[in-house]
Amino acid sequence: MTEHGIKPDWQRESRIGVGEAVYCSGKTAAQITRILALADERRQSLLLTKLDASRFAELDAGMQRRLDFDPLSRTAVLDHGVPTAVPAKVGIVCAGTSDMSVAVEAQRGLAFHGVSAMVVGDVGVAGLWRLFDRLDEIASWRVAIVVAGMEGALFSVVAGQVSGLVIAVPTSVGYGVATGGTAALHCALASCSPGVVVVNIDNGFGAACAALKLLRVFACT
Amino acid sequence: MTEHGIKPDWQRESRIGVGEAVYCSGKTAAQITRILALADERRQSLLLTKLDASRFAELDAGMQRRLDFDPLSRTAVLDHGVPTAVPAKVGIVCAGTSDMSVAVEAQRGLAFHGVSAMVVGDVGVAGLWRLFDRLDEIASWRVAIVVAGMEGALFSVVAGQVSGLVIAVPTSVGYGVATGGTAALHCALASCSPGVVVVNIDNGFGAACAALKLLRVFACT
Amino acid sequence: MTEHGIKPDWQRESRIGVGEAVYCSGKTAAQITRILALADERRQSLLLTKLDASRFAELDAGMQRRLDFDPLSRTAVLDHGVPTAVPAKVGIVCAGTSDMSVAVEAQRGLAFHGVSAMVVGDVGVAGLWRLFDRLDEIASWRVAIVVAGMEGALFSVVAGQVSGLVIAVPTSVGYGVATGGTAALHCALASCSPGVVVVNIDNGFGAACAALKLLRVFACT
Amino acid sequence: MTEHGIKPDWQRESRIGVGEAVYCSGKTAAQITRILALADERRQSLLLTKLDASRFAELDAGMQRRLDFDPLSRTAVLDHGVPTAVPAKVGIVCAGTSDMSVAVEAQRGLAFHGVSAMVVGDVGVAGLWRLFDRLDEIASWRVAIVVAGMEGALFSVVAGQVSGLVIAVPTSVGYGVATGGTAALHCALASCSPGVVVVNIDNGFGAACAALKLLRVFACT
Amino acid sequence: MTEHGIKPDWQRESRIGVGEAVYCSGKTAAQITRILALADERRQSLLLTKLDASRFAELDAGMQRRLDFDPLSRTAVLDHGVPTAVPAKVGIVCAGTSDMSVAVEAQRGLAFHGVSAMVVGDVGVAGLWRLFDRLDEIASWRVAIVVAGMEGALFSVVAGQVSGLVIAVPTSVGYGVATGGTAALHCALASCSPGVVVVNIDNGFGAACAALKLLRVFACT
Amino acid sequence: MTEHGIKPDWQRESRIGVGEAVYCSGKTAAQITRILALADERRQSLLLTKLDASRFAELDAGMQRRLDFDPLSRTAVLDHGVPTAVPAKVGIVCAGTSDMSVAVEAQRGLAFHGVSAMVVGDVGVAGLWRLFDRLDEIASWRVAIVVAGMEGALFSVVAGQVSGLVIAVPTSVGYGVATGGTAALHCALASCSPGVVVVNIDNGFGAACAALKLLRVFACT
Amino acid sequence: MTEHGIKPDWQRESRIGVGEAVYCSGKTAAQITRILALADERRQSLLLTKLDASRFAELDAGMQRRLDFDPLSRTAVLDHGVPTAVPAKVGIVCAGTSDMSVAVEAQRGLAFHGVSAMVVGDVGVAGLWRLFDRLDEIASWRVAIVVAGMEGALFSVVAGQVSGLVIAVPTSVGYGVATGGTAALHCALASCSPGVVVVNIDNGFGAACAALKLLRVFACT
Amino acid sequence: MTEHGIKPDWQRESRIGVGEAVYCSGKTAAQITRILALADERRQSLLLTKLDASRFAELDAGMQRRLDFDPLSRTAVLDHGVPTAVPAKVGIVCAGTSDMSVAVEAQRGLAFHGVSAMVVGDVGVAGLWRLFDRLDEIASWRVAIVVAGMEGALFSVVAGQVSGLVIAVPTSVGYGVATGGTAALHCALASCSPGVVVVNIDNGFGAACAALKLLRVFACT
Repeated sequence: MTEHGIKPDWQRESRIGVGEAVYCSGKTAAQITRILALADERRQSLLLTKLDASRFAELDAGMQRRLDFDPLSRTAVLDHGVPTAVPAKVGIVCAGTSDMSVAVEAQRGLAFHGVSAMVVGDVGVAGLWRLFDRLDEIASWRVAIVVAGMEGALFSVVAGQVSGLVIAVPTSVGYGVATGGTAALHCALASCSPGVVVVNIDNGFGAACAALKLLRVFACT
Repeated sequence: MTEHGIKPDWQRESRIGVGEAVYCSGKTAAQITRILALADERRQSLLLTKLDASRFAELDAGMQRRLDFDPLSRTAVLDHGVPTAVPAKVGIVCAGTSDMSVAVEAQRGLAFHGVSAMVVGDVGVAGLWRLFDRLDEIASWRVAIVVAGMEGALFSVVAGQVSGLVIAVPTSVGYGVATGGTAALHCALASCSPGVVVVNIDNGFGAACAALKLLRVFACT
Repeated sequence: MTEHGIKPDWQRESRIGVGEAVYCSGKTAAQITRILALADERRQSLLLTKLDASRFAELDAGMQRRLDFDPLSRTAVLDHGVPTAVPAKVGIVCAGTSDMSVAVEAQRGLAFHGVSAMVVGDVGVAGLWRLFDRLDEIASWRVAIVVAGMEGALFSVVAGQVSGLVIAVPTSVGYGVATGGTAALHCALASCSPGVVVVNIDNGFGAACAALKLLRVFACT
Repeated sequence: MTEHGIKPDWQRESRIGVGEAVYCSGKTAAQITRILALADERRQSLLLTKLDASRFAELDAGMQRRLDFDPLSRTAVLDHGVPTAVPAKVGIVCAGTSDMSVAVEAQRGLAFHGVSAMVVGDVGVAGLWRLFDRLDEIASWRVAIVVAGMEGALFSVVAGQVSGLVIAVPTSVGYGVATGGTAALHCALASCSPGVVVVNIDNGFGAACAALKLLRVFACT
Repeated sequence: MTEHGIKPDWQRESRIGVGEAVYCSGKTAAQITRILALADERRQSLLLTKLDASRFAELDAGMQRRLDFDPLSRTAVLDHGVPTAVPAKVGIVCAGTSDMSVAVEAQRGLAFHGVSAMVVGDVGVAGLWRLFDRLDEIASWRVAIVVAGMEGALFSVVAGQVSGLVIAVPTSVGYGVATGGTAALHCALASCSPGVVVVNIDNGFGAACAALKLLRVFACT
Repeated sequence: MTEHGIKPDWQRESRIGVGEAVYCSGKTAAQITRILALADERRQSLLLTKLDASRFAELDAGMQRRLDFDPLSRTAVLDHGVPTAVPAKVGIVCAGTSDMSVAVEAQRGLAFHGVSAMVVGDVGVAGLWRLFDRLDEIASWRVAIVVAGMEGALFSVVAGQVSGLVIAVPTSVGYGVATGGTAALHCALASCSPGVVVVNIDNGFGAACAALKLLRVFACT
Repeated sequence: MTEHGIKPDWQRESRIGVGEAVYCSGKTAAQITRILALADERRQSLLLTKLDASRFAELDAGMQRRLDFDPLSRTAVLDHGVPTAVPAKVGIVCAGTSDMSVAVEAQRGLAFHGVSAMVVGDVGVAGLWRLFDRLDEIASWRVAIVVAGMEGALFSVVAGQVSGLVIAVPTSVGYGVATGGTAALHCALASCSPGVVVVNIDNGFGAACAALKLLRVFACT
Repeated sequence: MTEHGIKPDWQRESRIGVGEAVYCSGKTAAQITRILALADERRQSLLLTKLDASRFAELDAGMQRRLDFDPLSRTAVLDHGVPTAVPAKVGIVCAGTSDMSVAVEAQRGLAFHGVSAMVVGDVGVAGLWRLFDRLDEIASWRVAIVVAGMEGALFSVVAGQVSGLVIAVPTSVGYGVATGGTAALHCALASCSPGVVVVNIDNGFGAACAALKLLRVFACT
């Protein structure tokens, strides 16, 4: 009666510029397998996000081998001809090592759509010299995806120094009042640096999508 | 000893692409007057935001006459040569009439920096035909600033239909669980439409700044 | 002294139109077993909700075989003559695959009381065409149970298009600000579409009960 | 450029069964006046909600005289032929005198659409005999709109006694943990009585809309 | 240097009427063992609360045998002469089977101090007849400890019917808005029935202590 | 149709030991006047709580003269023979001068029912000597109503020193994290001193009711 | 019976190093007047905090003249020989002009106890050059009181650059997610810069007290 | 491309007086191993915090042997010449045995930097005599790190008795409203004792850092 209830939005990329990724949290292995089969039928590449290693391990062995799975970022790629990634004046700044999983989710989200982006890591504001060492590079980007947990002060600091758009990705890294990432989220939203835009906590993929939409609509050719 | 504690960041525009606006909430009339005097000294145009009519009325009469004050959006402009606003494929979508004050704050923030943007109003999702009547127009923009309160469903709907970047501005319009705007904010952040970016509740000016930064860094010439 | 403290409200169905279901979360296997025994004594059918697979596995093997257990929706049925389910202009709309467990809880809750309802799945607002493909069908229902997590924009969109009552079931699907389902819940409650009614997060069974009460009190015969 | 941004959804009633009401909170007197003028042009009756006495007093005197304004419920009616209200097995239960403003909002919302409903008032659970005195009457309704603030225990008690659908309207009446109405809202959503459905805090009009939709889709003729 | 940091307040019972119980959550097995040894040295009976079965299993086998451990209420008693429990016009009302663990914590807390109390269970307000069947009994108590989760409507209902003091113990039973017990807690605190007093969520032992203090200070001899 | 919706629970005192007080917040002057008239008809004394001076001033002059109104505690008494208040081993401890309004609400609630209670004031824990100066007196009470805002540490300190029941009344006195009184409320509920019971924020009257119920049910004669 | 309930802790300064200030929010003019009279009796200087201009205006005219009242910081001093303030390697950093009221509260709290401290103002992180212009000066302090609202990123940035203790004072300046100051508070508490300590929102006086205690206990003589 | 994203701030100690510790929560064993290798290269001692026993067990056996790991406080030390700890008028007060893990984190954080501090444990306010027994000792310290969970009343009590700076460390010990430590945190921030400063929940290391900065900047030589 429900026929799996699965109906991917294959037209999304042509309509809005980024394709549908499969959000795997809360999906059973059977549901994920079914979606992958539908993609295979169309020979469509597919990005999977928030895919825990334990859920990945429940997929059948053949599918596991075919997927390019990265446990740190919990992403996997089903490859039916993913484009080669090339630089595009978009980069990622990552406050601490614990935030790296989210930064890499953004990086892989960009790469899946043909954009190569570097991650400038471990530049938390407790030691600003690390950021200033890399500031010329960051200032050359049109879009800077900034990933930070704890108190998220990095968002305001970077946005006060560069002319590119800062997309803030607060992370759930932290404890006490920082548990779950709300402190960093509010820090990003309340930033005194004008023009910071924000995505959901831990949503590296969402930040990548925003950057991809910008590259497409502003394609300067 | 403190000399007013006022030190505007006049270099901001050259550094990051948008100038310092004066956030007037919580400032006394004396403090605002002092900042305006500093701008006059430099013959620098200035945008004032969150300026209540009652606070505006406390300024001296001469200054009141010199300012272009809009009570709906609570913004004022001190004009030492504001550029003429011209269209730039940026527009504003506004869910309901009650949200219009925030939409106009964004519109005036853009205009202050030389960008003219239309407001497509009263297109809440309770009657989707109103949005679809205007969809071709909205879809032609590179950046769509979407302003909505209550439950904020409009963010996801627009972002699922257009290729331009959607900058969501949740508003504090609403009551009960929508009081203060958190419901709309969370709706924007949790959007199932990929690539929505968000600014603080009622922060029309911040959305304008993000758009302005994009226009500058992506200047296609 | 307490004799298990278990006293089912067997008269509930005759009094208010829906019978007592057994909410299994927080109950021990011994307590659940005792309730099933009481039902057996009366030859009373019984619906169990929020029954985790691990708790189900603690029941004795004979009882496990007698129960119709569905791990996705975490429901089980003890069958002493459950009525055959027939259609009644009630249906279920489900935003995403991850929400399906709650949708099926509603579906099985209806079926237990003799009402067959279809689930229209994977119609999230990021790709509205999927919803519009099915809109005529949905618009023919008297009651639409709409199940959605994340930002829950689907509630407002459906309610703005159909004349049937929309019962919103927010789900705990999501992360960051959507964790636990509060974002979707608030979206439902603050809906700008008039007449949306709401049940607790993940409470598919509650939505089914509301629909069942309506069918009974409005029985048009 | 924005032409007021006002575009009423006049088709709403034919599409979904209840017409657009004007939510007046956050709207200026000028905006409200403009909407009333648009209704006059079409000779369309209009219900205004959340209209404070102070805002009402800002409307021009002629319009004030034409509106049927009720300060307790903060509602007003522009009458271009409102139907005569007749009973329809729908009623309203109101916990305390302080909740009466919300109960009357529901009552007037129903009356505007031709449904007359009584309010059974002051039946809080601290003195259950008051409720039981009226229970036969309440049990005869198909839909009971139950309005309560403070802790909202009344929702569960009524829903456990009657077969009609209980639509809970939590109110912002209360102090301390009940401030703003969240305690009553959560009480309604977490009710142990199956099938309670809920609308936003203080949303008497929303409850009326749900009842009106039911009367229309279940019209037993 | 810290010598375990353990210093029980052995004088507490003589000072305030109830002795120190050992709150075991967050304590290591070594720390609990040390406290038990200190009690043994003084031949002092001891009540342990919030003792998970897994932590209990880490204690050495001899101690496990000496403790009267109840896994449902997560309490254990080290017995160096616990008094025989006798009735004292104090009783416990428990809304649902899932709340029974907290009710039994209260019951065992009373028994440890020589007071025997019955538990009237499964009397949730969804089926009020169950409560009214037992009301004469409950009304004969001087203190009624009422234990309820979900929406906690039972507190107000009981308190509106009896002259004894109602001590409300909200529980963490529930999901969605009831997760963690805050909904029930707020329901208790905002009760429209005058004179309800409240203890922390799941704090059955605290309610027992309050009752014990009352019995002692009001000892009518 | 609704006849004011006013139906006082006159039987409450005989049923549960404390009479109905009129909670005036959110009630119009007309509604309050109506309730007073009903009391006059029965020659029933009545206590009014949360009655702002501005609302009191809206009552007609004759009624104002007849009421014993106290603006600090926002209480008023309609006197048809209030009993003379006599001591009963119940007292009130008040942390700071700002909390005095709530303490006096409790004091007047007791007096209305014939119990005279002293207020020991300004004994906040920042200067413990003030409390210890009065400790013998406080320790002689059977019930101590402790009123405190800010962080509410006083609840635990008193409860750790006396054998009487401590009823904690958190107040909304404070700012920052103490705004609204939640910090003090949580401090009371999480107290490490066993047996503290709690009422809603600013609910001095509720604490008085609990004490009155105890005096009645434990009447030692 | 209560004799005003006012008992100042005059011994506090000798006991803990800072004297009792009078927190005026929530106190009536009569209560404040009584405390000032008690101070006059002892010829004791007194600092009043959170004293609104409207409350100040309610004091009698003679007392108004005797008090050194500062409306920006809402502080007043009753002077019976306040010591001359001298520098002590303690200073105040203030993020924005809107935060100045809290910074001056700290400054006046220090001055009342004989410590003169400068305020370095308008150094928000959106334009870091302003902070770096003053960094040598700030780095020379033993204690830096840092006052910031909005997102509070300044706390982490300063603390990562200087060896003095940073006492963070979050302010309630801001809107949306920054309303009330919780965003800044959480930013301070979750700071990635080690050793930041925090006081309550808007508690400039509390920060001053901490600095004063340090100066006294570390007096290097 | 990202080269691990790891760049320790080795200059931190010389810049601000405390060195970088490695916050291990959310870091993989590979990332931790890499940081330890970088420290070994420089022969730099390193403190690791929030290192769960399970993560520690994932490190290679040789490294496990080299680290001084304490499972209670979840800290480990890589020793390349840690200084001998000597007393410095700094001490730690710990409310309950369950809070000991955080107290020891502070103690080991101090010891790593050469400061020996005693822990005065089990002095919760439910039995104040335990605190007063040790008060002379505590009053002799220049800095008292006070560690408490539950309601955190201890912060105010100690700060009202001693002249040293009280650094409050709220812990996540507790349940119900105390879950996660927010109740204790708010109690610390809202303390009526002047001059209490606060660090994040469970942040024993942060309190140690604040004390270490004070010892360095106030070095009295």
